[in-house]
Amino acid sequence: MEQPNPSAAKPEFEASFRERLLDLLAWRRDVRHFKRDPLPEGAIERLIGIACLSPSVGLSEPWRFVLVEDEARRAAVRACFEACNAEALSAQEPSRADRYARLKLAGLNDAPCHIAVFADRQTEQGHGLGRQTMPETIEYSVAIAIHTLWLAARAEGLGLGWVSILDPEEVRAALDVPKDWRLVGYLCVGYPQETTETPLLEWQGWESRRAPDKVIFRR
Amino acid sequence: MEQPNPSAAKPEFEASFRERLLDLLAWRRDVRHFKRDPLPEGAIERLIGIACLSPSVGLSEPWRFVLVEDEARRAAVRACFEACNAEALSAQEPSRADRYARLKLAGLNDAPCHIAVFADRQTEQGHGLGRQTMPETIEYSVAIAIHTLWLAARAEGLGLGWVSILDPEEVRAALDVPKDWRLVGYLCVGYPQETTETPLLEWQGWESRRAPDKVIFRR
Repeated sequence: MEQPNPSAAKPEFEASFRERLLDLLAWRRDVRHFKRDPLPEGAIERLIGIACLSPSVGLSEPWRFVLVEDEARRAAVRACFEACNAEALSAQEPSRADRYARLKLAGLNDAPCHIAVFADRQTEQGHGLGRQTMPETIEYSVAIAIHTLWLAARAEGLGLGWVSILDPEEVRAALDVPKDWRLVGYLCVGYPQETTETPLLEWQGWESRRAPDKVIFRR
Repeated sequence: MEQPNPSAAKPEFEASFRERLLDLLAWRRDVRHFKRDPLPEGAIERLIGIACLSPSVGLSEPWRFVLVEDEARRAAVRACFEACNAEALSAQEPSRADRYARLKLAGLNDAPCHIAVFADRQTEQGHGLGRQTMPETIEYSVAIAIHTLWLAARAEGLGLGWVSILDPEEVRAALDVPKDWRLVGYLCVGYPQETTETPLLEWQGWESRRAPDKVIFRR
């Protein structure tokens, strides 16, 4: 497997790099509409290798990436999504429910690559360092690895969609992974049908971004 | 407050950018040793503005950044760290405990900028979308925003250290923020004393990175 190969150059970053990083962060999207074209051979393994450069509590590296390839397992995950989505729909007020139904929240049908990402709290790696008072930092480490994968994929023109309308235990069982692994995210990866700077939910009138100074406090 | 200002350029990223992105990911470190020099005026607010470009479940933007400036409050957080750290020390086997004690896990004394980052599960923003079956995606969104801040800071030559050896409820109370905010991370930000590609814990013989193919599974 190809390993990430960072340069040995001095890690001082140019203004031009920072500008493009800002573009990357601004243009990263939660993609729901994918082309069906497959990913290049070895691409997902390489991107996961990059994700493994992420920080983890006590260097525990608790991320477990499960590539879901079997059609029957994919169908089980899709059925789980549909059941949870129907329930979520009923929890919205009618005017919102109608819009919600049209959001087509999953790229589960078209995305060529499905990855279920789990956190392994039982890992002995890291010897428990830094996670006695906040064991949830294990899942946070995995969420951050997903984010790294997301950014690296976007930089290659690939889109990623994070499906969270799922029953985590049902997905775990459908994929036959250890009982103590916890689902953090189910990801669809593929080439996006369109590219936009505006979040899909904002574009569809569901919600909009707020000004950053609303979330800064001083103590 | 200065807002992030991404270019309107077509978001297609060059190979040279991807190479530098890999450098950034590889050279991001959990920094524990800071110079005491203050940050440039407005820098942290600008970096938080960039962090607000992060993905969040249902566009809920549940992150709350508390800049901890008051000396008495900083002392309360430090005392909390020391108590939790002593307990963590006693939980390690003696040979490890000795090494653990020397890890000097906190940059709490030197870092000029302290940020407590909380998740607000009660936020109505996003109208609950996508988080009924996995409400913990609220905290995951905040963890990802911390990661964005981390990368943006590193790209400017600033270091960040994430302190997790804390009692979250004690920190919340010491900072007098709403009871339903949950601490996700306490961050130290400043100029690092040294720069290395190797994680501090690896360098100090605590733990080492594993090969990525150990965390890839197929189903």
